[in-house]
Amino acid sequence: MWRVMETPLNCAEEQQPPPALPASWSTVTPQESPADRNDKGNAVGFVLVHAGAGYHSESKAKEYKHVCKRACQRAVDRLKAGALAVDAVTAALVELEDSPFTNAGMGSNLNLSGEIECDASIMDGKSLRYGAVGAVSGINNPVLVANRLLSEAQKGKLSAGRIPPCFLVGRGAHDWAVNHGIPPCPSEKMATKFSLSAYKRNKHKMELAEKVDTGFNHHSKKRRQASETNGSGLLDTVGAIVVDREGNVAAAVSSGGLAMKHPGRVGQAAHHGCGCWAENTSTLNPYSTAVSTSGSPFLASEDCVLGGVIVLRCCRCSDAQPSPDIQAILVEFLWSHTTESMCVGYMSAQDGKAKTHISRLPPGAVAGQSLAIEGGVCRLVNTPTTVD
Amino acid sequence: MWRVMETPLNCAEEQQPPPALPASWSTVTPQESPADRNDKGNAVGFVLVHAGAGYHSESKAKEYKHVCKRACQRAVDRLKAGALAVDAVTAALVELEDSPFTNAGMGSNLNLSGEIECDASIMDGKSLRYGAVGAVSGINNPVLVANRLLSEAQKGKLSAGRIPPCFLVGRGAHDWAVNHGIPPCPSEKMATKFSLSAYKRNKHKMELAEKVDTGFNHHSKKRRQASETNGSGLLDTVGAIVVDREGNVAAAVSSGGLAMKHPGRVGQAAHHGCGCWAENTSTLNPYSTAVSTSGSPFLASEDCVLGGVIVLRCCRCSDAQPSPDIQAILVEFLWSHTTESMCVGYMSAQDGKAKTHISRLPPGAVAGQSLAIEGGVCRLVNTPTTVD
Repeated sequence: MWRVMETPLNCAEEQQPPPALPASWSTVTPQESPADRNDKGNAVGFVLVHAGAGYHSESKAKEYKHVCKRACQRAVDRLKAGALAVDAVTAALVELEDSPFTNAGMGSNLNLSGEIECDASIMDGKSLRYGAVGAVSGINNPVLVANRLLSEAQKGKLSAGRIPPCFLVGRGAHDWAVNHGIPPCPSEKMATKFSLSAYKRNKHKMELAEKVDTGFNHHSKKRRQASETNGSGLLDTVGAIVVDREGNVAAAVSSGGLAMKHPGRVGQAAHHGCGCWAENTSTLNPYSTAVSTSGSPFLASEDCVLGGVIVLRCCRCSDAQPSPDIQAILVEFLWSHTTESMCVGYMSAQDGKAKTHISRLPPGAVAGQSLAIEGGVCRLVNTPTTVD
Repeated sequence: MWRVMETPLNCAEEQQPPPALPASWSTVTPQESPADRNDKGNAVGFVLVHAGAGYHSESKAKEYKHVCKRACQRAVDRLKAGALAVDAVTAALVELEDSPFTNAGMGSNLNLSGEIECDASIMDGKSLRYGAVGAVSGINNPVLVANRLLSEAQKGKLSAGRIPPCFLVGRGAHDWAVNHGIPPCPSEKMATKFSLSAYKRNKHKMELAEKVDTGFNHHSKKRRQASETNGSGLLDTVGAIVVDREGNVAAAVSSGGLAMKHPGRVGQAAHHGCGCWAENTSTLNPYSTAVSTSGSPFLASEDCVLGGVIVLRCCRCSDAQPSPDIQAILVEFLWSHTTESMCVGYMSAQDGKAKTHISRLPPGAVAGQSLAIEGGVCRLVNTPTTVD
């Protein structure tokens, strides 16, 4: 679906010394200056998040940036406390889900029946394990269920040799979560003023569209291609990708799905290999890679494909180490979208605070037909505690 | 997960004339003689089905072969009536689901709550569209819902520009199916004496296992690796792949899932790109390919991976045509499994009846550690109706 771009920087293959400071290699220079970074801290990791690819009004830009900042901080706090990538990425997602402004967890799009049904998945690059929930109601942090499915599966088989689940949907997912100590949340508490009014607006538009198309019935081949309106579905999915102190990667994604979707509809956020991917370096591959996507892989016949992606790859650069005790991890990261805008945030554990950015298509570019790509490079230096 | 083996036969790349009659290129010669084939009929297609990879007792061998035979006949009947691959493959699956001996539709494994929840998916190689249902109860032919999702999506958008669903789960899937004219079936009618007694047996084993492991609780890392018993889960999934008169391919898969699975658990049969795949020839690829799998791709940490697969690839052989009016399609097919046995059937529209076969691992081979591969070649000759 999405391919990681080959960047001019290539640490493992060409053994070029990586740049000492973060640098932009993209066509668009990130807003942030690298000056406030501190390369002397411990390489406890890096996080990149996004709060949805879609359209971010200037009036709400502050909110979106703020939630991205908090999500990065949450992940970095976990990394500094010694957490591995999979738990840090979960912490970032919880923050993104808790925001009423994102289409994930709290404030998700309502479906055709006026209910919230969420998808989420997570992948651990170390074990290549995956956990996912689809169309789950009454859980305000679906990523916690995905994370728990992954960690429970890691414990091995259930009684009588049963294989533990990695993908649960609907009522079964809800019940499993509650049995595993994840608190339920009444659906009405997950809806917001914004999502409820969008639902009413969409419902009205649907009724109008169906009235205009007299003689319409479900079995007719006649379908309205016009009056294309999705209302609150301006933002799709949230996601995060993380590298931890050991160089492990993890990725996660969470989504309330399309506005006015059919109950039981599962989107790409819950699909193995679609919503996110994480894979540690191996003998075959010098890079660890993590990806989280937004948009649908099932839009083969659509005129324009609207989506976004965050990607990172990283490797250890043994040639660039000042001493055998000190290791550096080079992280290359990017975000890309065909939607009008995408709000991202990123932070290394060496940074005092997260950088956030609302990426927009160039002036005059048409959403779905143009692509914006930006990215950067970050070097994580691991100074052993015995060395100062 | 599974890769199509490169066979010594290579029509499009090396332009070798294909063999005039079906021939086995495998290490194991198929039981059937090609003598009763009639190459003069119209090339209205080919079907390959399987009734599950697992263990087929000699006592039930007749039943399994019989259902494969009927499934092939159903698909060929549809092909002869002018149906395209996607509808023929559905017809084959319906027959496989209707058998009380297969773990799909009627007679499926019961889950932890004693209920039946089915997964099914279908893919059309022409449009690359996909339809799937997961954890759906009360529908005895889940493949009909997957097929209908695919065909409804082909009609374009819903009112107010909504994107039609391609993957529905649980209650939402059930309700969508019934609203689209697919008859519901009470769950108790879908259970069989065999599945009910297996459930009781498994329940008892689970209780014993949990009693033996005193002090066991769900949050403990201690899990029983022993007393490995899955009872009725001897057969996993059923599947079929088809080539139609135009050379289009389609694939489908249907499964009742693991015995004693957690409610809401969705297995690979419903996963896009996991349970089945179909892709027509393109400028980049001289072959059309169809695959249907059985077993789990999420068993990375398992000691032995139990699974099975049916695969076909086909191409038009322009050099081997007696005249420009007459076209031949060369179909290469195989089945492979790491389970003790796998029951398959195949038939071209030129055949009087299907060939069926219970493939077994060689004597002394250990399931999960050895692989059986068999296959064949079939040439479909398209004689225009004006030529006799």
